[in-house]
Formats: sequence, C-alpha cells, structure tokens
Amino acid sequence: MNFSIIRVARTILNVTDLDKSRAFYVDALGFFETERTNDHIYLRGLEEAHHHSLILQKAEKPSVEAIGYKVEKEEDLEGLESFFLSKGMKMKWMQEGTQHALGKSLRVQDISGLPVEFFYKMDKAERLLQRYDMHRGSRVQRIDHVNCCVPNVQKASDFYMKELGFACSEDTVDESGKLWATWLHRKQTVHDQAFMNGIGPRLHHVGFFLPDPLALIHACDVLASLGYAQSIERGPGRHGLSNAFFLYLRDPDGHRIELYNGDYLTSDPDTEPIHWDLNDPRRQTFWGAQAPDSWFDEASSVLDIISGEEVPLKEPILAKSKPEFII
Amino acid sequence: MNFSIIRVARTILNVTDLDKSRAFYVDALGFFETERTNDHIYLRGLEEAHHHSLILQKAEKPSVEAIGYKVEKEEDLEGLESFFLSKGMKMKWMQEGTQHALGKSLRVQDISGLPVEFFYKMDKAERLLQRYDMHRGSRVQRIDHVNCCVPNVQKASDFYMKELGFACSEDTVDESGKLWATWLHRKQTVHDQAFMNGIGPRLHHVGFFLPDPLALIHACDVLASLGYAQSIERGPGRHGLSNAFFLYLRDPDGHRIELYNGDYLTSDPDTEPIHWDLNDPRRQTFWGAQAPDSWFDEASSVLDIISGEEVPLKEPILAKSKPEFII
Amino acid sequence: MNFSIIRVARTILNVTDLDKSRAFYVDALGFFETERTNDHIYLRGLEEAHHHSLILQKAEKPSVEAIGYKVEKEEDLEGLESFFLSKGMKMKWMQEGTQHALGKSLRVQDISGLPVEFFYKMDKAERLLQRYDMHRGSRVQRIDHVNCCVPNVQKASDFYMKELGFACSEDTVDESGKLWATWLHRKQTVHDQAFMNGIGPRLHHVGFFLPDPLALIHACDVLASLGYAQSIERGPGRHGLSNAFFLYLRDPDGHRIELYNGDYLTSDPDTEPIHWDLNDPRRQTFWGAQAPDSWFDEASSVLDIISGEEVPLKEPILAKSKPEFII
Amino acid sequence: MNFSIIRVARTILNVTDLDKSRAFYVDALGFFETERTNDHIYLRGLEEAHHHSLILQKAEKPSVEAIGYKVEKEEDLEGLESFFLSKGMKMKWMQEGTQHALGKSLRVQDISGLPVEFFYKMDKAERLLQRYDMHRGSRVQRIDHVNCCVPNVQKASDFYMKELGFACSEDTVDESGKLWATWLHRKQTVHDQAFMNGIGPRLHHVGFFLPDPLALIHACDVLASLGYAQSIERGPGRHGLSNAFFLYLRDPDGHRIELYNGDYLTSDPDTEPIHWDLNDPRRQTFWGAQAPDSWFDEASSVLDIISGEEVPLKEPILAKSKPEFII
Repeated sequence: MNFSIIRVARTILNVTDLDKSRAFYVDALGFFETERTNDHIYLRGLEEAHHHSLILQKAEKPSVEAIGYKVEKEEDLEGLESFFLSKGMKMKWMQEGTQHALGKSLRVQDISGLPVEFFYKMDKAERLLQRYDMHRGSRVQRIDHVNCCVPNVQKASDFYMKELGFACSEDTVDESGKLWATWLHRKQTVHDQAFMNGIGPRLHHVGFFLPDPLALIHACDVLASLGYAQSIERGPGRHGLSNAFFLYLRDPDGHRIELYNGDYLTSDPDTEPIHWDLNDPRRQTFWGAQAPDSWFDEASSVLDIISGEEVPLKEPILAKSKPEFII
Repeated sequence: MNFSIIRVARTILNVTDLDKSRAFYVDALGFFETERTNDHIYLRGLEEAHHHSLILQKAEKPSVEAIGYKVEKEEDLEGLESFFLSKGMKMKWMQEGTQHALGKSLRVQDISGLPVEFFYKMDKAERLLQRYDMHRGSRVQRIDHVNCCVPNVQKASDFYMKELGFACSEDTVDESGKLWATWLHRKQTVHDQAFMNGIGPRLHHVGFFLPDPLALIHACDVLASLGYAQSIERGPGRHGLSNAFFLYLRDPDGHRIELYNGDYLTSDPDTEPIHWDLNDPRRQTFWGAQAPDSWFDEASSVLDIISGEEVPLKEPILAKSKPEFII
Repeated sequence: MNFSIIRVARTILNVTDLDKSRAFYVDALGFFETERTNDHIYLRGLEEAHHHSLILQKAEKPSVEAIGYKVEKEEDLEGLESFFLSKGMKMKWMQEGTQHALGKSLRVQDISGLPVEFFYKMDKAERLLQRYDMHRGSRVQRIDHVNCCVPNVQKASDFYMKELGFACSEDTVDESGKLWATWLHRKQTVHDQAFMNGIGPRLHHVGFFLPDPLALIHACDVLASLGYAQSIERGPGRHGLSNAFFLYLRDPDGHRIELYNGDYLTSDPDTEPIHWDLNDPRRQTFWGAQAPDSWFDEASSVLDIISGEEVPLKEPILAKSKPEFII
Repeated sequence: MNFSIIRVARTILNVTDLDKSRAFYVDALGFFETERTNDHIYLRGLEEAHHHSLILQKAEKPSVEAIGYKVEKEEDLEGLESFFLSKGMKMKWMQEGTQHALGKSLRVQDISGLPVEFFYKMDKAERLLQRYDMHRGSRVQRIDHVNCCVPNVQKASDFYMKELGFACSEDTVDESGKLWATWLHRKQTVHDQAFMNGIGPRLHHVGFFLPDPLALIHACDVLASLGYAQSIERGPGRHGLSNAFFLYLRDPDGHRIELYNGDYLTSDPDTEPIHWDLNDPRRQTFWGAQAPDSWFDEASSVLDIISGEEVPLKEPILAKSKPEFII
C-alpha cells in the first residue's frame, strides 16, 4: 500500500438553516465554533488542535457532501490517486485554496458510492482541553467515527480492509453467516468507519467522543432544558458492540449525531475481531431498551462528488434490515 | 395531630423464590443482607443504620404485605391508634416479638385500602457507608419512597395531608384540573409517598436512593452482565417531576423497584408545590424517551391486614390512565 | 421550646471588592446572581427557591455580619425573643424593610459570641434546578452548613442542643474525653452548624452542597482554568467525619468556602451520634492527604450585632488546636 | 527503521511478599488475576485481551526486572536485534518457554541503563470489559505508560525518538532551555514512556488507565476502607501536563503506581509537542496542591539484564531535581 490513512477527521453536512444548526451544535451540544463565514460554520471538539471536524454548510436540502480522512503525509495523496486511478473509480482533486482552512484534497466516490475525501493539511487551532471554563453542554471532545448504511457490507468491508488498510475490531453476522455490519478502524479505537446493511449509500451517523459518561447525562439535561428533548432519538444506553455508552440525536435537519464514550484501545494487530450474532439482544443494546424504527430506517443522503446530485439509493443485499429482537 | 410520622422506612414484599430474589437484590443490585431466616431475607442500603428497609418474604404468590412508616417516638403509636379508631378504620396491633427485629407496630388499611404499618423501634445495624470495599452493583443507599396506584388520588392525598401531616412537593393535574398524581413527604425529600391515578390499591414501585448518577449507569451494566437486561423496564432517564434521574426495574416476581438520584431538599413549609400538567411532555420524562405500557398498566397487589387476602381492585375515577404523550 | 428553627439559610460576608468577589463566586463557582445592588450581591444555588443564601456586602475589611437561620413560622421569632430575653443575651430586631428581600429578623450574639439571625420570610426566586443550560462551574446546589471556631465547644454544643433544639450527628473528643468538635443539625442532613475547638468566635467556613462528585472535580478544573488554583486550600478529599467529599476554597478576601457532597439522611432521632477520636487519622481525611496549617489556623472574624465592631477573640479551652496526625 | 514497536505492554516488579501484594493489587485496586504460580502473580486490566500487563515476582528485595514492549510482528524482534547489535548495546534473547505465557523476547539495557524487553507473542485472555459484575476497586482498565528517572533526559529522549521511532507529545524545559522531562509515545495516547531528570536509571511509576474519573475517586474510598490510606502518596489531582486526572499510590514494596484518566488522542504526526516551563505551577498540578518530597525523591531500582544486579545510579546532569514551586 502506497499510502497511510490516519483517521476520520471531518464531515461536511449540508443544512438548511445555519442559525438553527448553530443553536443545536454550539449552544446546546457545546461544540466550539472556530469560525463562521457566510455559508459555513466550522466546529471542533475540546481536544481538537485542528481547525474543525464538522462543517455545517448552507444548502437547499440536507445532505452529506463528504466524509474526510486525514493522511499521514502529503505524498499519501498521490499514492491514493494512483490507487483510485488503477481502480477506475470516480475521483477529483480539490486544490489548496478551494476549501477554507484545508490543503489540497482528493475526493472519490468509494466502492459503495459514498463521497470520501482525503487530505493532509488543515489549519491549526488552539486545543481547548484545559479551558474548562469554556466547556459546555455535552463537552464534545473529538470526532470519533462515521457509520454508513450500504447495500453490500461485505463489499464495502473488503474494500476498506484489503485496499485501504483498515482493521476490523468487531462485526455482526446474520443467521446465514453473512456480514451484516462491521466496525473498521485506522486509528487505535474501535472504529473510524462502520458499515451497516441497509438502503444506501447513506450516512447513518457521525459519532463524537465525550470525556466521561456524566457528560452524556448532562447533555440530555441541557438538551431538554433548551427544548431539544424531541431531538433525542435513542438512549442513553450501552451498546454491547464496542461497549459504547451512547446517545443518538437528530439535528434540526435530521442528520444523526452520536455522543459516545467507553470503547477501548485497538492497537494490537494480533487481537481477533469480536463477532456478534445479529439477533444477540446484547449486541445493539446491552441494557435491553427498545430502539425506535427511525433509527433503523432513516439516514442522510450523500452527494455525487462531481455532479453534486444525490447518489441514487440501492436496496440492501441482505433481507433483514433489523435484528429480530429490536433492542 | 397527636403523633409524628418520620418517614417511609420499609416494605414487605411477598416473593415466590427467595434464592432468585436474593440473586437479584443482593448479587446484582448490591443490597446488604442483614440477615436471612427460613422464610425471610432482610435487606438494607449502605447508609442505613437500622436492621432493614426491605423484607423479602417467601409466599405462594407475589404481593405486598405492608408499607412501613417509622414514627418519632413510641407514644406516637397510641396517638395513631386513637386517630384510626376515631375514623373507624380497619386496624390491628402487632406486638413486639411478632415481627423479627421490630418493636410493636400498628397496622391499618388506609383510606385507599393500602396496608400501612407504623412502628417506632427497629434493631440497629452497622452503617456501611464507609465500607466502600463492600459496595456493589447499584450501591443502593437507602429507601426513599413508595408510589401507589389508587382509584381516587384526591381522597388519598387529602387523607395523608390533612389527617397524617404530609406535605406536597409536586403534583399533576389533568385537563379538567383534577388531581392525577401527587408527591407527598414527611422527611425532607421530594417524597415518602406518591399516589397516581390508576386501578388500585396497588403498589406501583418502591424507590431507593443512590449516591450518584454513575451508580445508576453502573447498575445497568451490572444487571446486563448478569443477564438481567430484561429486568430493566424503563430508563435511565430524568423525570421532570422531582428531577429524579431514574431507572425502573422489575424483580423476579414483577415487583417494580426504582433506582433514584437527584431530588432536592423540601424542608421549607413556605415553598409552594410544583404543579405539572398531565400532558406536559417534560413531566414524565424530561429527555423525551418512551415509557412502555407495562409501566402504566402493571403494579403489585396488596394484602388485607386482617385476612391476608388480596385487596379487591377498583377502577380509577379519572378516565385517563396515561398522559396523551406517553413519554 | 416555643419556637422551631428549620435550617441554616444564609450568610452575610463582608468583602472588599464586589467585582473580584463576583468573578470568583459567579463566574468561577457558578452561583446564580439573583440581584446586584450598589453594595450587595445576592447569590443562590441551583435548587434554591428563595432569593439568596449568600450575601456579598461591600465593606472596608473582610468579616462576617451574620449567620442566618430560617424558622418554621413567623411566631417562632417571638418565641426566640422571649427565650433570649430570659437568658439576658444581646439581641436586636431588624424590622421588615431594613434588609433587602427579607422579612423582619431577630439578631443575637450567641453563647460563643457569634452573630446569629433568625427570620421567617424571604422573597422567592425561581428554582433553576432544571435549567441545566445555565449550570456552570461547581454547580452549587444549596447552602448546607456553617462551621465555626469557638473557644468552648462543650458550651456552644450544650446551648444549641439543649436550648435551641439541635441534634448531634457526629462529634470528636480528645484524649481526655473532652468535646473537641461537634456536628449539629436541625434539617435532616449531617449538619447545619458545626463547632470546632479554636480561637474564636470565628467563622471557619460556609459549606455548599453539590449535585454529585464530578461537579466538584469540574469545579477544580474550572477554577484552575480561570487562574484560581491558589484559591484551592485543601482537597479534593473525603472526610471520615460526615462522609463528605470535600473541597476547601479561599475567596478573594480569605473567607473559606467548602464544596461538599456525600453525606446521609439524619431524620431518625433514635440514631446515636458517631463519636470520633481526635487523633483517628481517618476522621479528618479518610484518604490520608495532608491538610495545610492555614486550614487549622485561619478563619473569618465576626461582628458585634450592635456595635458592628469585630468580636474580640478568646483562646480555646482545650490545648490542642490540631490533631496529632494532621491529615 | 527495520522494526515497529506498538506500545508498552507489561512491567515485571520484584516484590517481597506475594500475598501482601495480591491484597493490594487484586483486592483493593481491582486488577484481574489471570494466573498465580509459586513465585508469580499475573495481572491484567478489564479491557486487556492478553494474559497480563503486570507481573508480581517473588524476590528478596523490591526492584524492576523489565519493562516490556510489544512489537507489531515477530520479525520486528530480529530488526531490533540488528539495531542493538549495531549499537554494541547489552542484549540477550529469552527463548519461548523461558517466560510463562510469553513468546521469545529480546532484552536490552537501554541507553540510560533501563532493562527493556521486546516481544511479539503473549497468550490471550478473556477481555472482561463487559463483565461489569466483576469490576472492583479502581476498575483498572489497561496499562498506559511507564515513567522513568534518568540522569540525562536529552540523551534518553533522542534515543527513543530518533532510534526507536517514538513521538513526543509534551515536554518540560528548565530555565536554561534544557530538557527536564519528556512524554513519548508509540500508541496514540500521550505516552508509553516518560523520562524525568533525576538520579537513575530508576522506574518512577507505572501508569494504568481508568474508565472514568469517578473510578479514581472510588479507588481512594476503597483503599481507605481497607486500611490503605497511607498508600496514597499524591492526589487526586489534575496534571496540566497530559491533562491527566491522577492518583499516585505506593504498593507494599514502595513501587509507585499511577491511576490515570483524561488524556487525548495523539494520532496526528503534524501536531507539535506542548512545551511546558519547569516552573509553571500548572504543569505539575493544574489545581495547585502540594506534591510530597517522596514523589520527587523516591523510585524503584532496576536490574541488569545479564547479572540480575541492581544497575548503579548516577546523578542527573541538570541541577534541579524539582520545580521551584513544588506543586
């Protein structure tokens, strides 16, 4: 492999009302606003020393423009270009200066049709981890992962593991042994990128890491105080999978955000993935609480990197779109 | 008033399998077992300096034998006897020696038909608050309250407030202004005794106080680890009412236990009760998560203090058995 | 007894710079400012439904004007007047209108010379317990207690217990069995009023209750972020006595504030006080960390209720001003 | 570089009484005992899927036999052998079977004289992260780092960074700009290996990661309950450096253990190290509490990998062994 991806590093969400989104992400959830321009709000978590990990971009309709990965060094971008050229996959360069606060980036439509972007350089920002006086709401610490619905999890997984160098920490198989979901990582946490069987390609959620479990409880309280109780879609609860203490939120445009704490170090290549049965009730919710249908059915559309149009959706290859015991 | 009630102090639950109950209450929830006899297990929380606050009693069928209140001094029992005699209510003495570890007690069938007991003396036990090495599971700290379904909340509330000296911290009224639920206290917390409109008299749940919110999260994890995920009926969540961070559990016989943290001091008689609308979505669940039907429909039968038979149930006088927005 | 005291309810601290004090109490510690006038800042905690529990009053020198107790009903004030008259103790009325937001109050110089005030009525304020979006810093929840150095703890204790109706939850005796410190309460917590052997009368500290232990950790972080690390005098730690998880702070004038969480319900009159030996190392600091000399030596002067002058100090009757093992 | 080190993976501590050590590490701190043999106890934390991360080895005197690093693949061991041969450094192989539960390992005396060991294979063990019912005490989650006193921090740092491929997350320089301490990592946390200026080579402490800050508070309480208050040497507190919420303990032989939570992800090679001044009071203790002299003066002896004798100590090259403001 002629390149090295470090980690998922940002997401660009199209939103319809910047002020409403800002109220949710900054005032309620406690993201730091690095910068606001006419059409963009740039957000980061409290340990993040780069300019942003989340972009809210003014648009007519909600959608996802790109999922961004940071690479280890500038040359890795050429390595990735060669690789995607060799595969004949849709690709384009965004030269430095095109995107605010970012060096040049390579955009591709991945094997499932997801808009993925690779970059090395991003402007720096002050790490505010020890500015405890500025911590608010959920005290979002950093971007942790993205989770996407794709029609063929096995294909997506093979591509990320065999071609892009990801490792698998945990996965889920259905009754017939088929791969229903997979948790893949480059950095040493449980995941940077998860794939779940479903109508896709769509972004299911972006996950953000919190400093401790009480920050998540406090997030619920602050959201409720500010009138966002209806934005809490699921949780708080514990996933068996990844051991995450989780909360799922829907932002004002319906994009799903996960607040997350509690996984483990995945530095050792000789540790076998944990395999879960799709219908193991402890897999989805260790504590047994019910997940709403919306959590299984709804997700964000993604855009074509060239046309900017929504990528058409395909039905999943595995019949079952949920576990038998939806918990 | 010729008597002074201090606080709710114990509950006697009939259970069908002492070993199964012990596994739930002691091994999973972390209650301390003060003593076990042939037919009884006596449990207490980690700050409790009396012999027990919960009795598990071997029986053919699950039910509630009595809800026990501690009075301020021995003579209060005679004061209560006079009062109940004057009302012509069903009553009996249990002389010292009749009940293990307890002085004499006065049992009555209260205005709603609930089996209530008053006592002054109980054997002492070591307060284990600082034996942190022995704290387990949810780290149950002390009994906090009981909540009962009664057909006529207004009648029950009037009796406890006007005749027994309870104060109201919070209540809930329906669209027509009728009292749907009320939170009453003698000790300086939000409640010792709550009443909710419903088929009754039944015990809806016994609430236990935890030292902090993380103990509740840990309780969920320990319950799930030991295979009790199905025992978690509702939560974790925050009630608008009382500000409780809550978890509702069903014990092996279906008795409902609430783990509870987060209310406030109610020492000041000039503080007005907080009134909630039945259909205010923040009343039941501040964070907006769904409560299951079972939480509204199911509760424990209570026994006649003389015959030991189940007290017959009556339909509630208010039509609505749940809020419109069941959350 | 012809009166009923409910609880310690406020303290009036003379401070030399209101802006500096406000930065400490409001911006760093998260007290709510109910009101600010030319010479006063009125503060309350997040569950408090009365106008204030702490007054910062502009003055030339730091000192304590009064420790305020709330009584159960207006008539209790006359009962207290009769009592103090019968004792021939220094006393004065402050008529309604004299003190902002307060009804009439009775001020006395207590048996140790401390300026104590009794009142029934105070203006109400919104309880902000569920305005989680407004919670900051240490999330101070309510006033909990005051602790005073007095030359004769036995005399002070006898007066408060036998004459004013306080109960003792815990105390400390020296090698010869003499009372070195005592924890007294009216409300159902470990204390409203503690006395320690020392040069006095002086106010050692005012204690405020926090919602949970992590709020105390967060308070340390916020204080440090804002440059107040030097204001942290002792802790965080656990007292054996009262089981308090504690932090002691010195405000900009040197007044000592305790942040506090973790005690227990003291509703039962038949529970014996816990007696500690002065030199039991677990009494002062359960975890064994060293307390600085300043904690034993320094405290706030109190004022004469008539002259407004500092009350002269007396040496304590017990020789030992600290435990042998100062921890 | 012809090898890739993953992370610090274990420490071998010589202790004089296995039962006393077991009581401390297992009963009080909550380490899981994977296995006990005649002369060894093998311990792991609750997320660790390998056999052990700490070995307690029966010996006449306390000392450190080796600090163990895991490498990415078996061949890396040969790469390391070539490298150390080329440097002419003291080295030996321990063939598979020599050390229980471990594949072959390469031991070296590093540039400072520390006994360091590299291995690839270790027996697997069950990850007990979700056996919450078995979590006790401090809920130690995994080994995080070792911190060593060395006479020449610049030399040690150069060797680990330039020759072994470590990155620097944070460091400390004295008034003259000389490197006084450095925090180096291979895995994506703040450190695997720290070096501090001091008499050496000695092991200052082994750090273990906890799941959340309340686990650290609970650890203090459990230690105190079991009579280990005197084992708490420093903390709880927050380091400015690394943002660690810390507690330092001395085991029954005086070996120092750090319980640790709160650092951040260090995956990005383009993030500059944070530089601290030695005398910045927030560097050592963000909250300002005093560190005892013992913390600066005492550390564990290390052994020669060939002779098994204690490695002779050297004075540090920088004069100052502590900050001016020891906090």
